[in-house]
Amino acid sequence: MVGVGLIGSGFMGKCHAIAWSAVGAVFPEAGRPRLVHLGEVDAHLARRRAEEFGFARASGDWRAVIADPEVDVVSLTAPNQFHAEMAIAALRAGKHVWCEKPMAPGFVDAEAMARAAEASDRVAVLGYNYIQSPAVRHIGALLEEGAIGEVNHLRIEMDEDFMADPDAPFFWKHEAASGYGALDDFAVHPLSLISVLFGRVARVICDMAMPYADRRTHDGIRRAVETYDVASVLMRLENGMPATLQVNRAAWGRKGRIAVQIFGSRGSILFDQERFNELRLYVTSDRPAEQGYRTILIGPQHQPYGVFVPAPGHGLGFNDLKIIECRELLSRIAGRPARLIGFAEGLEIERTVHAMARSFREGRWAKVR
Amino acid sequence: MVGVGLIGSGFMGKCHAIAWSAVGAVFPEAGRPRLVHLGEVDAHLARRRAEEFGFARASGDWRAVIADPEVDVVSLTAPNQFHAEMAIAALRAGKHVWCEKPMAPGFVDAEAMARAAEASDRVAVLGYNYIQSPAVRHIGALLEEGAIGEVNHLRIEMDEDFMADPDAPFFWKHEAASGYGALDDFAVHPLSLISVLFGRVARVICDMAMPYADRRTHDGIRRAVETYDVASVLMRLENGMPATLQVNRAAWGRKGRIAVQIFGSRGSILFDQERFNELRLYVTSDRPAEQGYRTILIGPQHQPYGVFVPAPGHGLGFNDLKIIECRELLSRIAGRPARLIGFAEGLEIERTVHAMARSFREGRWAKVR
Amino acid sequence: MVGVGLIGSGFMGKCHAIAWSAVGAVFPEAGRPRLVHLGEVDAHLARRRAEEFGFARASGDWRAVIADPEVDVVSLTAPNQFHAEMAIAALRAGKHVWCEKPMAPGFVDAEAMARAAEASDRVAVLGYNYIQSPAVRHIGALLEEGAIGEVNHLRIEMDEDFMADPDAPFFWKHEAASGYGALDDFAVHPLSLISVLFGRVARVICDMAMPYADRRTHDGIRRAVETYDVASVLMRLENGMPATLQVNRAAWGRKGRIAVQIFGSRGSILFDQERFNELRLYVTSDRPAEQGYRTILIGPQHQPYGVFVPAPGHGLGFNDLKIIECRELLSRIAGRPARLIGFAEGLEIERTVHAMARSFREGRWAKVR
Amino acid sequence: MVGVGLIGSGFMGKCHAIAWSAVGAVFPEAGRPRLVHLGEVDAHLARRRAEEFGFARASGDWRAVIADPEVDVVSLTAPNQFHAEMAIAALRAGKHVWCEKPMAPGFVDAEAMARAAEASDRVAVLGYNYIQSPAVRHIGALLEEGAIGEVNHLRIEMDEDFMADPDAPFFWKHEAASGYGALDDFAVHPLSLISVLFGRVARVICDMAMPYADRRTHDGIRRAVETYDVASVLMRLENGMPATLQVNRAAWGRKGRIAVQIFGSRGSILFDQERFNELRLYVTSDRPAEQGYRTILIGPQHQPYGVFVPAPGHGLGFNDLKIIECRELLSRIAGRPARLIGFAEGLEIERTVHAMARSFREGRWAKVR
Repeated sequence: MVGVGLIGSGFMGKCHAIAWSAVGAVFPEAGRPRLVHLGEVDAHLARRRAEEFGFARASGDWRAVIADPEVDVVSLTAPNQFHAEMAIAALRAGKHVWCEKPMAPGFVDAEAMARAAEASDRVAVLGYNYIQSPAVRHIGALLEEGAIGEVNHLRIEMDEDFMADPDAPFFWKHEAASGYGALDDFAVHPLSLISVLFGRVARVICDMAMPYADRRTHDGIRRAVETYDVASVLMRLENGMPATLQVNRAAWGRKGRIAVQIFGSRGSILFDQERFNELRLYVTSDRPAEQGYRTILIGPQHQPYGVFVPAPGHGLGFNDLKIIECRELLSRIAGRPARLIGFAEGLEIERTVHAMARSFREGRWAKVR
Repeated sequence: MVGVGLIGSGFMGKCHAIAWSAVGAVFPEAGRPRLVHLGEVDAHLARRRAEEFGFARASGDWRAVIADPEVDVVSLTAPNQFHAEMAIAALRAGKHVWCEKPMAPGFVDAEAMARAAEASDRVAVLGYNYIQSPAVRHIGALLEEGAIGEVNHLRIEMDEDFMADPDAPFFWKHEAASGYGALDDFAVHPLSLISVLFGRVARVICDMAMPYADRRTHDGIRRAVETYDVASVLMRLENGMPATLQVNRAAWGRKGRIAVQIFGSRGSILFDQERFNELRLYVTSDRPAEQGYRTILIGPQHQPYGVFVPAPGHGLGFNDLKIIECRELLSRIAGRPARLIGFAEGLEIERTVHAMARSFREGRWAKVR
Repeated sequence: MVGVGLIGSGFMGKCHAIAWSAVGAVFPEAGRPRLVHLGEVDAHLARRRAEEFGFARASGDWRAVIADPEVDVVSLTAPNQFHAEMAIAALRAGKHVWCEKPMAPGFVDAEAMARAAEASDRVAVLGYNYIQSPAVRHIGALLEEGAIGEVNHLRIEMDEDFMADPDAPFFWKHEAASGYGALDDFAVHPLSLISVLFGRVARVICDMAMPYADRRTHDGIRRAVETYDVASVLMRLENGMPATLQVNRAAWGRKGRIAVQIFGSRGSILFDQERFNELRLYVTSDRPAEQGYRTILIGPQHQPYGVFVPAPGHGLGFNDLKIIECRELLSRIAGRPARLIGFAEGLEIERTVHAMARSFREGRWAKVR
Repeated sequence: MVGVGLIGSGFMGKCHAIAWSAVGAVFPEAGRPRLVHLGEVDAHLARRRAEEFGFARASGDWRAVIADPEVDVVSLTAPNQFHAEMAIAALRAGKHVWCEKPMAPGFVDAEAMARAAEASDRVAVLGYNYIQSPAVRHIGALLEEGAIGEVNHLRIEMDEDFMADPDAPFFWKHEAASGYGALDDFAVHPLSLISVLFGRVARVICDMAMPYADRRTHDGIRRAVETYDVASVLMRLENGMPATLQVNRAAWGRKGRIAVQIFGSRGSILFDQERFNELRLYVTSDRPAEQGYRTILIGPQHQPYGVFVPAPGHGLGFNDLKIIECRELLSRIAGRPARLIGFAEGLEIERTVHAMARSFREGRWAKVR
């Protein structure tokens, strides 16, 4: 039984905890992990969460989790700025690392993480959960078998509206120190899909915008916003394919949209994360008068839906994606093949994001490498 | 900590196991239950499942689970024909009972279960999970506050296609001994929604049909089908409201559809279980030129979505409904109010189903009581 | 060139006028009709409309239209209670008749119309335009070729909300003299679809309801409503197939819904008049993992869309259905085959509606014949 | 009565003919035009079409149409390369001109047309029909009244699949002489919407691609394709607003898609021409728990739908947009305000398209002016 350490118990920490709790029941072959040690910023909170989440031990110091000899794998869900230090320490301590995305605010830190992973024989992966959904996996299978012919164009949009209210006050995500804005909040997710489905990005040109130039601080004064809620990108993939990426965290009405349009020589595929239990497929092998997008409801034919519910169309939830990711991680730890984005590929994603920001600053196409 | 016994480890048994595993992490205030004892038809299978699901003990005899003094509540997921015997025994042994629906194939057995629950001071509830979804709860809240005025008409359809293939062989669900057909497989679910949202049904008239008169047995001969895959019902509720119910387990293309249409004097509400993270609302308080169905994506405003994911529109899954149900059960065991269908209300649902079948046999309207 | 007389110039009169104006340009082979004579209730209005619609002559007396020797075909769009007298007179005068539906408020009058048509050698057809849409025609073609196998179940709903406002005043449609209510306003349309796609109805049982028992008159007093805005019907077709029909003219949010669900042994078809340029088809010949409803956008493959627009997916409108109907009428007048509902089949539709009302009054199944 | 001349009788010629035939019946106040003279490339075809479309005279020479003293307005639907010569001649002959878009393949010709219009006192407008739909007009009204606050981001996509088949043979649209490709085929339409809803474009950067590098000619050899089926553009409007435009004429599954997403500080609006009788609106004035996109079905509240059909939700068709455009033209001819894109504004649209192509050639942002 794999021993689990969890650092951080906020939204994503809870999400990891649910995954570690349920993975054994959902995927019997995965082997039921032991919830060993939970770390939080103070011992009191750590104890409370450990009790809630079912962890045996609790510490107010994350180093204790990493040092725990019964811990084999560390779930890293602390704020992004701590990822590098924690992940590198955990790897050096011989632990497997499951780190939430993105890797680190600065590229140098991300590189250090990738080097540490490279230098270690442990598993070091990132929490890109959207690649785990049965629909996205099935898209991958369809592309591989040529169901829509040769793919020649791709569009992805990722939009939410948590920054859409102009009256919401200034907070840390509006400071330049937090990053570029929508680009690092969102773009990494579509890039994770591109990474598993199509490969790497070669060059980009990006435009960014601030819907609201300033916001009220808690002191009642208005302060200039320093990050960009909207980013639009033209891209060329390494194989030359044209693609576009658009992200917007101020898009009223959008809640968890990741809309994908894939066009090929024999059909096309549509997908939207807001309805991630569905997939739309158009193929020219259908008789002309009956060609149309098929709305395919995910079911047991689409791995690994069937281990959750044996009947089709009953739906997985967001947290189930993390359970699947957790199973993949256990598989890789056990030496079996797994669908995961490791630190090396994660670094490529961050490199691409930085190239986008650079192309905007310079007002011209930028090469990723 | 509540001690849990689980009888049965098939589809619904696993669903209960996942709920018992995750409920503590999802709902910290619920209290983390202890997985004590799993019962299956043979000791070997019981042991394997106990290991997978994380139960401490295992038995090949369900009576051992009920007799276990550390077990406080029994999850009953064995086949329907065993529900009555097991539930009554568990209640008599002083255990709370969480029994999968429907109660029992025969009305007499269901009555005995309801009597046993009545005679006991334990919690005895049925696994009607569709009433737990945030969308359905929000529909209830909207109706209560009069958001669509006075409701005057209701239509519900429940359709799947697992019986749609005419070439699928004859099996036990085609035998009259298994019940009426779609009526007991499906109708109980819409009736559970009607029960929590609108109250009881007064009278019904039902038509039923067999899309395929006979099917091939495994011996290669054709045998007459004895159950009805399609049923259509006109109903009047106790308050006089007209409603219709249509169920079809041979409806090609439908996977988990429970389509609800609620019409009121000031608006209407639409819902479909196949997209149960959405809800459609039409209200006449919108300006005429902008009236239209709003597609509301379920989010933290809709209880208890927010404990699963803090961001809206990310989606719950079918198994999450069972986790919510499990939390409700723990609440009721702790003496707090809870949204659950107990044995008494469950009996009413079964009474309504039998009235539907009677109205079909007799070719005329039938009163439920 | 066929000479056209038009009686009535309200909503449907205008719709006929547009059709007569445009049919020649849309369907070159139809032959361009001459707009000869328009009749209205007074000469002044008749003249104004004749000018607007491009008719050569105008009369304040409908008999003048029928008597006009240059008129070959009479468009009958006057209120329903005049249909019988006018249609019979026109047929006796040797004119073809294109009469708006329904035939007449009373069954006896409808029978007289059917007899007059039977006795004449002229074309006598009803304005059931929904059967003309390319989508509905393609559904017919799909059913005929067995695309979804043998059809075993049918559901149709027709809903609008023009009676949904409880504060709207009492008017003539609330009087029993106007008919049953939703049943004659709406049910005839779904029955026209059933007529062309599936054949005749054998027996029915209907429930009807009044969402609002009384309404304010213009005098400010409240008067009891005498017609039923909601009707729900279980049906058996002559071939034994079970079907349901639901109509509601007080259904907030529904504007022109005619939702059709057709289930067969090899697939299913969905259609909704509110999006009548689309059609949804599910077939089991698709590979299991890619089965799903195809949303087919109507295009040149679907007759006669292509004569309106050569590119697919650009959409026809409600008035275009009347233009198609007009072409069919011209075809039949020219002795060519045409898709139309004549007086005899129209009488069957009305017979079915009356059987529905009877089944409600008597509280039991009623045979149509 | 306005006298009409029609040059060209292909797809758009027929579309104009239907509009001229029906406009009087649909819009009584518009005044019924007289169909005077039809011009085609040969006298025989001209005569046949004139008969079909109801024109009084026919000529094999377009100059005869323009010279006809009874012709007040000329519908120009001949191929694009003839627009400039015909339009300028017609204007000089004192005729109003209704010219199909785009103006001309070369910018110099378009400029000449705009100068001729400027120099004339006649009406000179382009056939941008998508701006005429009730939904698009209502979007304009919503934006004007601030229903979604201040607009801060816009995305438009226009996609069809008539170039999607890699096996379709090489034809004139694949030659560079025909223009850039999707950019001039499609981009002008979204730009017409931007023009009426948001104003002018200031700067652009465009990427273009050829899904299929070569195609088989009728001689069986493969020939290099010279036009681009895919174009993606980042834009800034004159007011600084960021927008994106994507066009693809090789997008399998898309038939007449013009998908618009408009984001503002208080809501957002979605629209898709494939369902142009609908409009989706999200506003933050709705109560948080009931916020969601409203699907508004176009009805009499949305001008000028009601003159076509008095009941909402019954749907307009593509040809109806041309009838509306024709009414606008008649209004402007009569000196009343009208919603139309004249030659001056049309020239701006073409200027923008050329800037896009330039930005692609040069690989950098280009200013429109």
